[in-house]
Amino acid sequence: MSMPGVKALVFDVFGSVVDWRTSIARAAAPFLARHGSSVEPAEFADAWRARYQPAMQAVREGRRPFVRLDVLHRENLDDALRRFGIDPAGIPGHELDQLNRAWHELDPWPDAVEGLTRLKQRFVVAPLSNGNVSMMVDIAKRAGLPWDAILGAEVARAYKPMPEAYLRTADILGLEPGEVCMCAAHNEDLAAARACGLKTAFFARPTEHGPAQATDLHAEHDWDVIADDLVDLARRLDA
Amino acid sequence: MSMPGVKALVFDVFGSVVDWRTSIARAAAPFLARHGSSVEPAEFADAWRARYQPAMQAVREGRRPFVRLDVLHRENLDDALRRFGIDPAGIPGHELDQLNRAWHELDPWPDAVEGLTRLKQRFVVAPLSNGNVSMMVDIAKRAGLPWDAILGAEVARAYKPMPEAYLRTADILGLEPGEVCMCAAHNEDLAAARACGLKTAFFARPTEHGPAQATDLHAEHDWDVIADDLVDLARRLDA
Repeated sequence: MSMPGVKALVFDVFGSVVDWRTSIARAAAPFLARHGSSVEPAEFADAWRARYQPAMQAVREGRRPFVRLDVLHRENLDDALRRFGIDPAGIPGHELDQLNRAWHELDPWPDAVEGLTRLKQRFVVAPLSNGNVSMMVDIAKRAGLPWDAILGAEVARAYKPMPEAYLRTADILGLEPGEVCMCAAHNEDLAAARACGLKTAFFARPTEHGPAQATDLHAEHDWDVIADDLVDLARRLDA
Repeated sequence: MSMPGVKALVFDVFGSVVDWRTSIARAAAPFLARHGSSVEPAEFADAWRARYQPAMQAVREGRRPFVRLDVLHRENLDDALRRFGIDPAGIPGHELDQLNRAWHELDPWPDAVEGLTRLKQRFVVAPLSNGNVSMMVDIAKRAGLPWDAILGAEVARAYKPMPEAYLRTADILGLEPGEVCMCAAHNEDLAAARACGLKTAFFARPTEHGPAQATDLHAEHDWDVIADDLVDLARRLDA
């Protein structure tokens, strides 16, 4: 399989390249124990992440100016703690900031480094994540993700799935939308990218949301490429 | 020598990391010959580059909105051609566009890849260039420059030496200005960075402007680090 004319692959990161749920649960576990909470760390991770889309929606709708995801995560942390009966006002700010940094230390899925390293030989590879630049840099350095550039919501000043996030990213790369392929484990992300004229590549991450995951288990449209993971994507793109 | 607290090194690129003059002269030579010009390719490169600062100045002063350097280079190419009696209107646009792409194919100085590769082990390394993102990506991929991120004027929406170029770059990295070190072969760049609170590292590139270079042959202030080149900078920073 090939995608003629495609010069850059841009990637969703949370869930697609890194396993945020396991990583956040791991970081939250000692914090929760220290504060006497019996909530399951993975359940806490889910609750924290559940506030992700609503928080960005306020920015997308112009109800607040663009702020980077680190800021939204920090606000969402307070909300998630309250949800489980922990008052964030009773916890030192530096301790909350440190837990918020867990989003900078997410583990890659096992195939991510090899897949991206191979894909980088043939394509420009960059994140097109809603995560901010320093978050993506820290994740990449720790995990060894060999990005050519760090793009995404902060550089485009728009959160996915706003068209600006995709179109400005292609423009910054000096490419037409059809010369860029959005690669993600989320059908909605790909649908928004396709609507902007980007090519699309899907690979499922069936345990992103844990063992009972019910969404994004399969490609729901005829994406340009459908792969098993990033190593398989490299194989399918002759990289 | 060490720079306590510094977490990221950001680099000037044109002249500091890559040898633009030799590279542009090499690309211009067949073009000039094809169009019957007897101008020395290096002289043409100098004339093209001489229009660089004035073109950015219009953006810095708000006389025109921010446009990426690719656009300014293309305009400056027309001006430089006219200077040597070549009418750009008589040349197919794709041929001029192709020559303009020469700025995406600049050779690194011999120490650049080794130096940056070593520095990357201890620091976040990124360009803070007035060049645009796709130019920096193309240069890096061709030359093997191992940047952690591509930052600079296009991401900051401000051309150096405007303070916003330095301050927004530090902010995007999630760092205080004093946690970022500007690394350059140009004293003026470092002076502007220091005025914003960044740390500074100088290394001379005495042939950037050819054998008769008269500027930036030495460090003109007490920069935080003064090195011979990027390998020496790595050594001095224990990287």
